[in-house]
Amino acid sequence: MIPDSLTQAQFDTVYNSLSLVIASQLFTAIFLILALPRVLPRYRQAMVIAAVVCGIAAYHYFRIFDSFKGAFVTDAVGGRGTYTQAEGVSFNEGYRYVDWLLTVPLLLVELIAVLALARRVQASLLRKLIPAATLMIVLGYPGEISSTDGARVLWGVLSTIPFLFILYVLFVELTRSLDRQPVAVRALISRLRILLLASWLVYPLAYALPVLGISGADAWVLKQGGYSLADIAAKAVYALIIYRIARLKSYEDDPAFAAVEGEPTEGSTTVSTPTAG
Amino acid sequence: MIPDSLTQAQFDTVYNSLSLVIASQLFTAIFLILALPRVLPRYRQAMVIAAVVCGIAAYHYFRIFDSFKGAFVTDAVGGRGTYTQAEGVSFNEGYRYVDWLLTVPLLLVELIAVLALARRVQASLLRKLIPAATLMIVLGYPGEISSTDGARVLWGVLSTIPFLFILYVLFVELTRSLDRQPVAVRALISRLRILLLASWLVYPLAYALPVLGISGADAWVLKQGGYSLADIAAKAVYALIIYRIARLKSYEDDPAFAAVEGEPTEGSTTVSTPTAG
Repeated sequence: MIPDSLTQAQFDTVYNSLSLVIASQLFTAIFLILALPRVLPRYRQAMVIAAVVCGIAAYHYFRIFDSFKGAFVTDAVGGRGTYTQAEGVSFNEGYRYVDWLLTVPLLLVELIAVLALARRVQASLLRKLIPAATLMIVLGYPGEISSTDGARVLWGVLSTIPFLFILYVLFVELTRSLDRQPVAVRALISRLRILLLASWLVYPLAYALPVLGISGADAWVLKQGGYSLADIAAKAVYALIIYRIARLKSYEDDPAFAAVEGEPTEGSTTVSTPTAG
Repeated sequence: MIPDSLTQAQFDTVYNSLSLVIASQLFTAIFLILALPRVLPRYRQAMVIAAVVCGIAAYHYFRIFDSFKGAFVTDAVGGRGTYTQAEGVSFNEGYRYVDWLLTVPLLLVELIAVLALARRVQASLLRKLIPAATLMIVLGYPGEISSTDGARVLWGVLSTIPFLFILYVLFVELTRSLDRQPVAVRALISRLRILLLASWLVYPLAYALPVLGISGADAWVLKQGGYSLADIAAKAVYALIIYRIARLKSYEDDPAFAAVEGEPTEGSTTVSTPTAG
């Protein structure tokens, strides 16, 4: 539930967090689109999906931002005051679920797409991952909007089942298909999976806060900040690692392309990039 | 008719459904534009029309969303309350008909365009499909805005005649022209026609609700949700299948293009894509 009132510092923290997400997602999307020619055509599908995911997230954060701004009135003069709930408006948290319903399956599609696995393997992985991701989000929603702890726990547990299944597919089944990937790519995929696991764990934690009896303005601000950082990690940072994988694989596939495009990769010492010829 | 009042859950459901459609259509349009270079030039016309259709739908859903938001006032504080009709404004359902008037003929054009049939066959199909689609929408509108069941039934029946004619052209006449399409393309076209039929059937069902005596807030919310999902299926999902057909035919037409672009197709086992050379 939205708190009855926020201090200036609490209001500003949420305001700035939400705006940070908009900037991160929007400009990651634009960066990915501009960087498309820097990977071989066969890896552009993954990049386009990554850009679309960041774009969808930017759209929803615009809505969340507006909804948040409208949900409070303040007695502030010159930037200091107390923020209380406005009458006749509501802060709509449902946007987050609508966003996840579209973006979470796509995040898994972009991971599988960038690996360019054999067609049969790819199809088999996606047939498991996409329905599981959709189910995970759909089962979480009734718990999120319920007002009783019992319903929240029940739907939370149900939603955890497809989540564990996704982890199984990514950490066990997918690993079997990575033999033919270059060593540097395998390292990046490991990093990507850990990022995914770490950022996705924020969501059930935030979901469980009311059941754990953690409420009040500070908890709510923490939850909004946590969701914001998790969304930046799970979509924008994730997309940049996808781009690194796509570049690395492009260089590996086509030395001539590597010679034209080749330059040291940004900020990494673990990957070996062919130098410009 | 718009209900006198909505609960918070009903209001949020419609609000989130409408926003989901905006996000789906807008980002499908962007995806299609970014994916244009991934099909041969002769299939890009179909992709551009598909992107335009999704863009038009996104525009109209922005309008519907704003109209819906403005049509209710609430006593909600902090996200819980009752929503009652605002005075001095009205929810404009006519947008949907304006949208369909533009997009429904274009949906049929994009299907015919992606098949790249002989020019004479293509012209003959379009001369039947475009006027029939326009007539279907124009005849439905007087029934939608009428206040009597009799008028609703009359115009509904009249509108069904061109609808049945479209089905005849798509399922009988078009089938005769598909001999030279690859097997995988024929399978996708079958799936596309079934998607079209299934999603288009939602509209007459929603249209018939008042005649069937189904009214009230729940029915209205169901209708808005149904329209939303049907529009996503009939335009965005439909467009993605058009893209799959275009990719498949591009690979089939030009093995060199397939070798450059070639990577496993996303999520399908029924299509045979040449692997990268």
